[in-house]
Parts: sequence; structure tokens; C-alpha cells
Amino acid sequence: MSAEQKKIAIIGATGNVGRKIVEILLQRNSIAPERIRLFSSARSAGQTLKILNQHFSVENVADYDFKDCYLALFATDSDISKTFAPKAMAAGATVVDSSSAYRLDPNVPLIVPPVNSELVTKSKNLYATANCLACPISVVLKPLHAAANAIRVLASTYQSTSGAGKAAMDELQQHTKKALNGEAFQPVNFKRGIPFNVIPQVDEIRADGFTYEEFKIMEEVRKIISPNLKIAATSVRVPVMVGHSISLAIEFERELSLEEVKKILSQSSGVKVSANDYMTPVEVEGKDDVYVGRFRKDPTTKNGILLWLCSDNLRRGAALDAVEISERITKVWGQ
Amino acid sequence: MSAEQKKIAIIGATGNVGRKIVEILLQRNSIAPERIRLFSSARSAGQTLKILNQHFSVENVADYDFKDCYLALFATDSDISKTFAPKAMAAGATVVDSSSAYRLDPNVPLIVPPVNSELVTKSKNLYATANCLACPISVVLKPLHAAANAIRVLASTYQSTSGAGKAAMDELQQHTKKALNGEAFQPVNFKRGIPFNVIPQVDEIRADGFTYEEFKIMEEVRKIISPNLKIAATSVRVPVMVGHSISLAIEFERELSLEEVKKILSQSSGVKVSANDYMTPVEVEGKDDVYVGRFRKDPTTKNGILLWLCSDNLRRGAALDAVEISERITKVWGQ
Repeated sequence: MSAEQKKIAIIGATGNVGRKIVEILLQRNSIAPERIRLFSSARSAGQTLKILNQHFSVENVADYDFKDCYLALFATDSDISKTFAPKAMAAGATVVDSSSAYRLDPNVPLIVPPVNSELVTKSKNLYATANCLACPISVVLKPLHAAANAIRVLASTYQSTSGAGKAAMDELQQHTKKALNGEAFQPVNFKRGIPFNVIPQVDEIRADGFTYEEFKIMEEVRKIISPNLKIAATSVRVPVMVGHSISLAIEFERELSLEEVKKILSQSSGVKVSANDYMTPVEVEGKDDVYVGRFRKDPTTKNGILLWLCSDNLRRGAALDAVEISERITKVWGQ
Repeated sequence: MSAEQKKIAIIGATGNVGRKIVEILLQRNSIAPERIRLFSSARSAGQTLKILNQHFSVENVADYDFKDCYLALFATDSDISKTFAPKAMAAGATVVDSSSAYRLDPNVPLIVPPVNSELVTKSKNLYATANCLACPISVVLKPLHAAANAIRVLASTYQSTSGAGKAAMDELQQHTKKALNGEAFQPVNFKRGIPFNVIPQVDEIRADGFTYEEFKIMEEVRKIISPNLKIAATSVRVPVMVGHSISLAIEFERELSLEEVKKILSQSSGVKVSANDYMTPVEVEGKDDVYVGRFRKDPTTKNGILLWLCSDNLRRGAALDAVEISERITKVWGQ
């Protein structure tokens, strides 16, 4: 098989992010539909997915030898990535992994496309995309850090249920109906009932009191921006379908006026300064950029600012990142 | 009329907080039901309210001379309080105002009952209760400040719709039904649609970029705790019926271990250390205390901690505060 005919394999294709990767590949004409192969676990294999009027059959990843693909995009849990990514690389494919399996591995580039896609080179065949909160924070922080040296970041998140998968979104919808009808329900995908509630726990709690989600945000942003950066995060699940929001406090070494902050961000890749003070989750669904609003000087410290970030977590920090990294790989490798 | 027969007047009695004041007065047997008189604007006057099996007729406050009451509790907007509170005081009543009309007036004690009810004395006939976020922050901050001198506070809120009134709660319910049915809706009580969304704006935005809600939180906490305290707040409306939550970062002059923090809070008035890591809004409805959880050391600063606060905003920081201040006034004044 000639290189030109080689395919892109998407593993975890039936999930929220997997389906969104296919949708974005088709929207951007990144690759011909017939060069896309979809894979899942045995449980979902055999399905046919219809995405943007194209039909795709879903195959069992356990039966795949990865020999006809030059790129394998994993939209899976860490354990699945750890099982099959080495097999894909051994077969000659380059891997883009959306799970947290390799993100903090010092040998694996952690790519946020608007920030550091120059790390995609011919010398590496494994790349990780960042957590869906670490990504928007990094997209906003990178140009400001370059201008004034960020030293301290505090983030409180408002995370949509789509980050927990399709079943979690279905639970929000179905349990909200039950709540409105006064019927009882038992949480399955959340630590408490999600309808008309907020839950300050995403993933399990570590010995240091932070959740694994908060730990990912803090360590990934430090890997992407600077190991000297001090950062703390509090992750909260909110009853929203799609779209993550972040209340962000940033302290710099040098002062930046709000006008300078807006100017820098309006000239940066992957960011938009919200026209109407701020954006909300339902407004950013389907959009590629991280929207920044509620610009304020932080009155508690000399060189601090307060911001509100909002982005479509299924695109930016997930499927869009995987597709942009794939396009970069295709370009660098001349596929 | 003898002093013993004098009454308590509740103005704004048909609103969320007004009705809750009556409920708590009855629950606590603070006063005989026949000594409670309810008032509202002309629009709601003439109604009969049934609260805990007691029936109350609602009268037009504009027709009231305040002469038969020793206490007038205002659960109204600032403009109504400013119109009728002076009239009540002129007639000899002591006023407890839940609006923001007098909170930052240096001559008016701003009372958070678990924190500073000793400010209720015979020398003052006007008291303000604090904002429903400033109150729980102060309840938690006061004992920790006494132990280690708090110097900096950053708060991001998750505020329920009940803080915007009954119409806002009804809008959340009705528009959520429409959203689930795929029907269109136009926001009335919110700056954006509230179903399955979060909105980083409560009240209007000031010239400095902060909303009036954020300004109230910051200035009221400083008035209650210390004018030297540095504090920044970001207020966000979430699709929750009742119960406000706060992601709180506190920096102290001296270090406190998490064990010390928990010990201090578990011995403090009006606070409970959450048994099960944290509480969520639906779990605190009907409870009097501020629940504190998600205890973590703040890795970005030497003497900082991170906390999650959750409280019933119709009780603590609203109706319960008004009732507790009333009980204190009754005791101090010997009514």
C-alpha cells in the first residue's frame, strides 16, 4: 500500500470526543472519508455511525493490526490507550492520544495546538493532547506569560457533563426530567445527583486533597507553560450539557493594563475577546476559540487580573486539538 | 397598647426571603403567630399566605403607620427599604433590613449573627443583614482570621436562582422544561438563558469591571472582618434552585495546618465541617449552617488554604440572619 493511501484510525470512535473528531475531520476536509477507519471496544463494535451524512462501520480495536494507518487517534480512557497505542506505534503509526496516559511523560510532547505545535517533529511518534481545562488555560496564559511572566494562577471551574461522556449527558437530561416531575433518581455517572445541583468533585480525591482532575490541570499547565508557574485548581461539575467555563486569577511579575491584556489576547491564536462582556457555555457550543471576558484588575495583588474563560470542551481541549495535531503531523511527515 | 403586645412587621412578605422569615419565626417559636403582621407592595396586598398551617393576610405597606410594631423586618429591594425604614423608625420601631440599602453605611451595624451579634445594642435602631455570599464567607473567615490573620481572599461563586427571587426560580423550572422539549424561550430574569447554562453576571457591571454583587461581597466582608483584608470575588449564576456554593482561597499571615483549620471551624458557631468531603446545594436546603469541605493547602502560596462552602442562601445570609437579629433585639430591648 502506498503512503498516500494510508488511513487515519480513530479509536474510541463512538464516544463524545471520537465522534467529534470524525465530524471535524470531515468539516475541514482534513482527509477523504474513505481513509477514515473507526474502532471501539467489542461492546460497541458492529455499529454504523452516521456523521455529517457519511456512514462509518465501527470495528473491534482488539482485532486491528494498525498496519494500514499512518495516524492513530485515541479518544479513549487511559488504560485503553496504554494497551493499544504501543501496538499502533509498533506497526508504524504515529499516535495522538487524548487520554491522560502519556501527558506527563517527559518524553511525550504535550501539545496545545495554538501554543506549541512546533513540538511536532519527525523524531516523535507519540503526542498527547491536554486536559480540556488545561488547554484553554494554556491558550490564554501563553501569550500573557510571554508578555509579563505569569507567576501564580488560581482557577475555579464550571465543567459541563459532556466531559464525563455521553452517558453523563444523558443522565443530566433524564434525571432533570425526573426532578421536574418530582420522581426519584439515583446518580450513576456523578458523585451526587446532577439536576439543579453543582458537584465539587470531578474524578477521585487524592491523598493531598486535590482530585485527579485538578492535579491534571495543575501539572499539565505547568508542563505546557513553565515548571516555575504556581497554580491551584478547584474543579466543579455543573448541570450544563457542553461548554466548560473557568474563573481565572493570574498574577504576573510585571504589570499589564487591561487594555494590554485585551490587545495581546485579540492578537493571539485560538483566543477571542468576548464582544459582549463574556460568553456562556450554550453560546460557545460548536465554536473553536477560547472566549475571554469579565476583564478586571485583581484588587488583592499588585499585578493581577481576573478573567472568565468559556470554550466548547468537545472541540478545544479535545477533538479539535487531536485534528489540528493530525494535520500538523500529516504536513511534517509529508503524508 | 402595652409593650408585650407589640408586633413584628415583615415587609416584602410575599418574596422568597419574606416567606422564609415567617416560616423560621414560627419554627423557632420566636413570637406568637398573632403578633406577626405581613406587608407588601400594593400589587401583592390582599393575598392570604399559608405558612406552616398558619394563615396570614398581606397588607399594603403604604397604608401602614408602623405604630403597633416594635420590630420591622424588611425583605425588600433597597429602594423600598429606603422609603419605609425611616417611617418605621420614626414610629418607634427597630428596623432589620435585608437589602443592601444601609449595609455599607458606617453608622449602621452590619450583622452576621454567628460573627458579631454583640453589635446589637440599645443605642441603635437600624441593623443590616449581610449579602448571602458575604455572610457565609464571613462566618468561615472570622474564626480563622482570629487564629492566623487572613490577608487575602479570592472567591468564585456558584449562586442559585433563588437569590434572584421566586420569579427567577420559576423561570429556571419553566425554561428548563422548554429546553428539554426543544422549545424556544427568552430570558427574563437573567442576562442569558439559564437552563443548562452558567452566567458570570449577577447584577449590573460597574465601571471597574466588577458587578454590584461582587462589590457587595468584597466591601461587606471587609466591613465585617477587617478593612485591611484584600478580597476579590467573581459571582456566577448557576441553574440551581436553592443553595449557594463558593470556591474560596484564603491566605493567612501565619500558617494553619488543615487539621487546625478543621478543628477551629468545628468549634465555631454557624459552621459545620462536611462529614462526606463536601456538601452540594441540594443537600443543604433547609439547613442553618455553612458547610465547609474540600480542605486543601493552596500550593501557590506559603500560608494558603482552599475550601468549598455551601449554604442555604434563603436561610443563612438572609431569613435566618434577620430572625436571629430580631431575637437578639428582643432580648436586649426586653420586649
